[in-house]
Amino acid sequence: MKIAVLGSGMVGRTMVIDLATKHDVTSFDASEYALELLKSKSTVIKTIKADLSNYTSYQQLLKPFDLVVTAVPGFMGYNTLKAVIEAGKNVADISFFPEDALQLDELAKEKNVTAIVDCGVAPGVSNLIIGHYNELMRIESFECYVGGLPKIRKKPFEYKAPFSPIDVIEEYTRPARLKENGQIVTKPALTEIELMDFDAVGTLEAFNTDGLRSILFTMPHVPNMKEKTLRYPGHAQLIIALQRSGFFSTESIRFKNEEIIPLQYTSAILLKEWKLQSNEEEFTVMKVIVKGKMNGTIKTIEYSMLNRFDAATQTSSMSRTTGYTCTAAANVFAEGLFNEKGVFPPELVGKNETCFNYILDYLRQRNVNWAKKEY
Amino acid sequence: MKIAVLGSGMVGRTMVIDLATKHDVTSFDASEYALELLKSKSTVIKTIKADLSNYTSYQQLLKPFDLVVTAVPGFMGYNTLKAVIEAGKNVADISFFPEDALQLDELAKEKNVTAIVDCGVAPGVSNLIIGHYNELMRIESFECYVGGLPKIRKKPFEYKAPFSPIDVIEEYTRPARLKENGQIVTKPALTEIELMDFDAVGTLEAFNTDGLRSILFTMPHVPNMKEKTLRYPGHAQLIIALQRSGFFSTESIRFKNEEIIPLQYTSAILLKEWKLQSNEEEFTVMKVIVKGKMNGTIKTIEYSMLNRFDAATQTSSMSRTTGYTCTAAANVFAEGLFNEKGVFPPELVGKNETCFNYILDYLRQRNVNWAKKEY
Repeated sequence: MKIAVLGSGMVGRTMVIDLATKHDVTSFDASEYALELLKSKSTVIKTIKADLSNYTSYQQLLKPFDLVVTAVPGFMGYNTLKAVIEAGKNVADISFFPEDALQLDELAKEKNVTAIVDCGVAPGVSNLIIGHYNELMRIESFECYVGGLPKIRKKPFEYKAPFSPIDVIEEYTRPARLKENGQIVTKPALTEIELMDFDAVGTLEAFNTDGLRSILFTMPHVPNMKEKTLRYPGHAQLIIALQRSGFFSTESIRFKNEEIIPLQYTSAILLKEWKLQSNEEEFTVMKVIVKGKMNGTIKTIEYSMLNRFDAATQTSSMSRTTGYTCTAAANVFAEGLFNEKGVFPPELVGKNETCFNYILDYLRQRNVNWAKKEY
Repeated sequence: MKIAVLGSGMVGRTMVIDLATKHDVTSFDASEYALELLKSKSTVIKTIKADLSNYTSYQQLLKPFDLVVTAVPGFMGYNTLKAVIEAGKNVADISFFPEDALQLDELAKEKNVTAIVDCGVAPGVSNLIIGHYNELMRIESFECYVGGLPKIRKKPFEYKAPFSPIDVIEEYTRPARLKENGQIVTKPALTEIELMDFDAVGTLEAFNTDGLRSILFTMPHVPNMKEKTLRYPGHAQLIIALQRSGFFSTESIRFKNEEIIPLQYTSAILLKEWKLQSNEEEFTVMKVIVKGKMNGTIKTIEYSMLNRFDAATQTSSMSRTTGYTCTAAANVFAEGLFNEKGVFPPELVGKNETCFNYILDYLRQRNVNWAKKEY
């Protein structure tokens, strides 16, 4: 299959290399450096330097391809997906844009296109799981706990991220939407901090963040849903301290002769402290718990995953756990396992048992192992 | 007596009003507003608007006065004191400048002037106490614990100050000099955090700061000396977190198109959070512990003070505990109780029993009560 991968960042790169083992892959990016880096890792990969924000060019750009995978920065994700759909190409998207992808459902149907969106790890696998079990049981509650953390714990934050502090702080300040007793409720982020123990990791803290996204609307009958972010204990308290004392404020304050926006300067200061180095060991830990009635009896289904930085390929757990889920979805197309037209978040793909098992197998083959418990 | 008070800030103002009950007082300040505020509080006070950084003017300016009290900002304190001494006037100083006042001792002797410096609460009363007991016992150890705190505890810092955050942070980052087993040792500020219980206040935390100043050199025979700052528990840990993650750095970092100095912007952000409002209730709590051998037996002398914001006069405990110690010293001159020439930190005044008792009585009459325990 001829596959175009738009965006060649950390995750995009990992996907290109994976897809290239089975497909004819072309990587698109505006950065010469990113494309050279890819070429240095594989000889079979084709690259095209292109300004992907020039959406009118997509019709031409994508003509030769059977399938498109999008991994562009979030801020341009929605327009990229829209342009790909308008070009009439099936697409697997992992750009995690703030807009609601389902707004493009009609356009996709009209263009006879299948678009699978949010197919990373969370959102992504968590959606697959609720979608799958929604077919098998009457779900009473859905819980998702997820975190990407550095192996080396450095005080005070004990946190590193491959993306900008501003994006992390945005996640820490955006109100979290949960589902409680059938109602969507909004709580401040970083609330309801609780300690949880994870095998081979130890105790972490979990707190509310706004991570449910599409399932708030695609699973209206599930009365209880929450998503929490995992950090080393003490992180949240420190973030709350910064927030309470004005370090995240977006209202500029006058100092000497300059107007400063606290959030921006706080991010600048934290940049060095929070920067995950390209070869720095990190891991992704996640637990999804689905409770409900299955043939008349209350059941709890628990999916757990712990994935570590891969020294051999120098790829982060974050890029593999998210990227391989998306490449799995791309192969779901390639194998002709999913043919409905429209825009589909993963829960709508996961209801298809074949697709669900295919994706988890695909991840397992790449050493991203989801352990299941049922009780 | 004709007394000139240089500087009419929070403490200066309190001193002028106190001295005016017994003396002919003139207040000098560059700020019209500060002088008007004073006039509104008392009709007998004379005011003169003057640029006190014009040191050559002192000779003329101070001619009519018998005694000078200096309460200027720390950064101009040394030059102010030098100019007053050169003008040949006895002076009580409370400007707390970083330079070593004893450098001016020779000049003072030559000008036949008496200068009492650092006569606030800490440094100030703590120095008087060690100076006094140094005459009565063989001191083995000296400990001073002091803090100015808001009555209302607001998370996360539970701290307010009438001065700029930059000055507070300077105190939190300057290495602390202590005396241990006869050696002067330097430790980072905010180290050796311990919890201490205070009557009518509760549990506070104490940590190292660089507050011993002159007694490090005037009491060379005292083998153990330390000064610790008091805060509500948890404050230090938060400060350390900010420090460790670069918020106090003075090396500018590039952000977008601006060079920012983290310390400056951190101070700007904390300004609102830490600002003690003029009518905000606060208190000053202090404990001085002197241990040593008195006529052959080990004795511990403990002086404690707790002073609260005075609603009646709307004066802060900080301005009264520091200011009245300095006005007491001024009256020590007026009463002719201290006639040695040169520069004297309070420990050298405290060795004079009459002066020591006079100052503590003077404070007691103004409701700044030092409770003594001996065991």
